[in-house]
Amino acid sequence: MSLSAALPLPPAPRADAAIPHSFTAERGVLDATLAMRHAGIRRLRIAWELQGSADGAVVIVQGGISANRHVASSARFGEAGWWEAQCGSGRAIDTRRHRVLAIDWVGADGCLDACIDPADQADAIAAVIDHLGIARAAAFIGASYGAMVGLQFASRHGAHLEHLVAISGAHRSHPQVTALRVVQRRIVALGRSEGGVREALALARSLAVIGYRSEAEFEQRFGTAPQVGPDAARFAVEDYFDAIGPRFVARFSPVAYLRLSESIDLQSVAPESIRVPTDLVAVAEDRIVPLADLYTLAEGIRARTQLHRISSLYGHDAFLKEEAQISALLETALCRSLTA
Amino acid sequence: MSLSAALPLPPAPRADAAIPHSFTAERGVLDATLAMRHAGIRRLRIAWELQGSADGAVVIVQGGISANRHVASSARFGEAGWWEAQCGSGRAIDTRRHRVLAIDWVGADGCLDACIDPADQADAIAAVIDHLGIARAAAFIGASYGAMVGLQFASRHGAHLEHLVAISGAHRSHPQVTALRVVQRRIVALGRSEGGVREALALARSLAVIGYRSEAEFEQRFGTAPQVGPDAARFAVEDYFDAIGPRFVARFSPVAYLRLSESIDLQSVAPESIRVPTDLVAVAEDRIVPLADLYTLAEGIRARTQLHRISSLYGHDAFLKEEAQISALLETALCRSLTA
Repeated sequence: MSLSAALPLPPAPRADAAIPHSFTAERGVLDATLAMRHAGIRRLRIAWELQGSADGAVVIVQGGISANRHVASSARFGEAGWWEAQCGSGRAIDTRRHRVLAIDWVGADGCLDACIDPADQADAIAAVIDHLGIARAAAFIGASYGAMVGLQFASRHGAHLEHLVAISGAHRSHPQVTALRVVQRRIVALGRSEGGVREALALARSLAVIGYRSEAEFEQRFGTAPQVGPDAARFAVEDYFDAIGPRFVARFSPVAYLRLSESIDLQSVAPESIRVPTDLVAVAEDRIVPLADLYTLAEGIRARTQLHRISSLYGHDAFLKEEAQISALLETALCRSLTA
Repeated sequence: MSLSAALPLPPAPRADAAIPHSFTAERGVLDATLAMRHAGIRRLRIAWELQGSADGAVVIVQGGISANRHVASSARFGEAGWWEAQCGSGRAIDTRRHRVLAIDWVGADGCLDACIDPADQADAIAAVIDHLGIARAAAFIGASYGAMVGLQFASRHGAHLEHLVAISGAHRSHPQVTALRVVQRRIVALGRSEGGVREALALARSLAVIGYRSEAEFEQRFGTAPQVGPDAARFAVEDYFDAIGPRFVARFSPVAYLRLSESIDLQSVAPESIRVPTDLVAVAEDRIVPLADLYTLAEGIRARTQLHRISSLYGHDAFLKEEAQISALLETALCRSLTA
């Protein structure tokens, strides 16, 4: 393992070149039979999207539990993706040079009410690359839950991967953070049994996001005095909760939330089982993924491993918000994976 | 402000001497009219207990929101108190030398459904000492919420206090911790509107206790692998949740919990308004009270102030669990207050 605090390479110039002739974007659904880690053999529909240079190196890109197969917009699929800042023509994950593959998480459609292991997600991705005739991916770039799945993929399907980039995700969940997620799931269960499921899901989401940002950001955004009347007090953070909760409820089913949240807590990879060159990105202020766990992971991996430690007010959400820092890291990592 | 990492004095020898002739223990209820900070003028019943040497110096002792006026057992009131380890004959708060006064928190009976400020609790204690003809207390020893109220008492009734000892409580609540408590209260509100209030209160308590202990303790106690079946996973921490939740529900009403939890978040004392000699105790691993807030507080107080920083696996709960460390701190502090 080696450590680096900052990265030497400047971002590549962002040329707004015309889309190359070879650019393609396609979506599909694979009907696959998966031997799941805990839930037996299941018939699953795995939705995928592939976009970029038709002869480019394949890069698998996966995000948090609320991310999906649409990483970035393209001429064919024009709606904004969840990682526009990092993926596209001239971006760090450059669709002029790479073919970007991503799936919707198994369970995200709310149709599978069973224990879903992060290993199952890795197997689903392996089934898709096999189906598409891709022998080997140049890189797997995963953030948050996607990083956990990337570690599973490297462990279980290392022969099909040249390079792993895992941002803010580890080989296990910390027990104290698991405890917080258990409460989130119990909130939803409380609402389910009582008919208040939308309100409950919004509340569970509010609890989740507290951990996604740093103490310092809460101080800056919500440090103002509450409004207090005789019978009720309202705290600054409540406006935030009331904004994000309903947005989340609109796009997430309770079953999907329960099973993907649980899946995070089922994460278990032996670091020694990973023999793929790896870049790990740790955010010092991350309250969800303790730095100590990423050191343990980095020390265990049996291949060249570099742990990049960055600092961000956004804590666990840095991969979405620290555009310049993350872009520089990705460009260096991809540059290395293509020249390895 | 001065800082000390450890304390010089050894614990005093614990003589199991006979109860002195002058020992008394009594309880009472004061009907008082209080001008509350947010809720207007209210008629309140304030329950108090006073025990110890009849001619001893008065020491006010207050704990967390679930503590009460019964700090320790006596011949007259034999049931165990919430701080037996620190209070009694031969203990750090020695009832052979001191008279220990404590109240049930205003709102603890669940009869007052209004915003209760920690300042109101300080005023209630001031009303009790006035009623009892106590001109001046030798010390106010407060832990957790009791420390917040102690700071209020020192700020508002400093003429009646010689010395403050505030353990694991600050002049304000940190906005990120307030956010966690807002979620706890919303869980209870969800349960109330849905009819599942006991389950909701147990769940809110589970969320609260996650913050009371350190990351390292969770690792030690709940770091074992979950039991996973096809449809359900059970994590080690769930046994703990299922044990503590019902215990809490048995002795706390939803209204009392909502109003005392809210009260913690209403805490607001200007450190500069405190002109009473003060010992602050900070626990490095406390996730509820950031160390930085206690430094700010210590720097602002306009009297001799000493900040004692201790380390404990038990985080915020150290005042209940670190018997030797806390005992040594209290003995030194009380020794100083009696000889000042």
